[in-house]
Amino acid sequence: MTIRMYDLAGADDRRRFSPYCWRVTMALAHKGLDFEAVPWRFTDKDAIAFSGQARVPVLVDGDRQVHDSWTIAEYLDETYPDRPLFDSEAAKGEALFIKHWTERVVHPGIARQVVADIPALLHENDVEYFVTSREKAYGMTLEEVVADADATLPAFQTSLAPLRETVKVNAFIGGAAPTYADYIVFGAFQWARCCSPRRLLAADDPVHAWRGRMLALHAGLAGKAVGYEA
Amino acid sequence: MTIRMYDLAGADDRRRFSPYCWRVTMALAHKGLDFEAVPWRFTDKDAIAFSGQARVPVLVDGDRQVHDSWTIAEYLDETYPDRPLFDSEAAKGEALFIKHWTERVVHPGIARQVVADIPALLHENDVEYFVTSREKAYGMTLEEVVADADATLPAFQTSLAPLRETVKVNAFIGGAAPTYADYIVFGAFQWARCCSPRRLLAADDPVHAWRGRMLALHAGLAGKAVGYEA
Repeated sequence: MTIRMYDLAGADDRRRFSPYCWRVTMALAHKGLDFEAVPWRFTDKDAIAFSGQARVPVLVDGDRQVHDSWTIAEYLDETYPDRPLFDSEAAKGEALFIKHWTERVVHPGIARQVVADIPALLHENDVEYFVTSREKAYGMTLEEVVADADATLPAFQTSLAPLRETVKVNAFIGGAAPTYADYIVFGAFQWARCCSPRRLLAADDPVHAWRGRMLALHAGLAGKAVGYEA
Repeated sequence: MTIRMYDLAGADDRRRFSPYCWRVTMALAHKGLDFEAVPWRFTDKDAIAFSGQARVPVLVDGDRQVHDSWTIAEYLDETYPDRPLFDSEAAKGEALFIKHWTERVVHPGIARQVVADIPALLHENDVEYFVTSREKAYGMTLEEVVADADATLPAFQTSLAPLRETVKVNAFIGGAAPTYADYIVFGAFQWARCCSPRRLLAADDPVHAWRGRMLALHAGLAGKAVGYEA
């Protein structure tokens, strides 16, 4: 039975823009598993009620249901040990560090650049939920969140230094080949790319080149996704 | 022949306070190798001239000379493969990321707290070199660098979030056991501890508990070092 993943989509079914779902999409492709990425919207709570979850990604593999992108990665390595996402215990521990770095540094930094571009791409049922919940979290309008985007872009780019220095030396964070740490960080950039035409990376930034290598992986899976060229 | 490592020392030969040398000290202990950590000062250029280097750590192992803490770690894993510092290629790639995070986030953050405490601990020959070179790099006096230490401490602690979230879940960054990524980050905290009585971590911070585990490793090697209880 084909694996199903509930995957956040915009008004266009093909626009998939969750950084967490992109981690799982890339992980499934990494393992060469067949899967169906089922479009899901923020307000489709009923569609994943079976899982007890209110958010995606949710993975359904036969009679197993797994949620949370990190737990899904662990599940995939346990169940399908070929082509591991974590090639050692230390690699997994360090990937957890990189996950938290991504969520503390990269996600907020990208949101300050692109979050106001998201509502226009959402399914009409999702717009109010998205705008209201995000504006409440920020304590300001989405337009206010991105108002100083040009001014904050250099600091965001500087904050990527650990990634930049790593991918100057190695093709991927994982070395010569990508591992789950790469997919975690890449999910953030793919989220931006699928939501916004805004350019976050200079063309000569080693992070830009790494992102290009990520876009080309697995027969160009991410590169062919509906989004922008940014 | 016993391995020798040239190791930055203060006026007291026993005070070893280089974050980079601590990485190597912990790595040598991790592998259970006998070594002599030769005290060295910033102005002892002649003592390591044989290596072509002006800075430590420099490792001498028989007729091999190795410098740069990262290169030394690679050398140790190649030469003494038991008890690896990097247990996989991905673990090594990710450790490189954590190295750059440490040097971009942790080192500058700690320096803003403790750098003015260092001159009093230095060998008299080193004081002028240290103060002049650091004040030139900062463009201000060392007292000015730490003038707002109390005000910047919370932001420093917040910047440790990726480490904190990781060691909440696992005993070490590397998982159940320490690997070189742990030694890299720990070197920064041990540098602070050997230089300054200033408390950088709250007693209930998971980073504090992790540092305690690091201090206890290898028969308490780092915990017994000349420094402060901070």
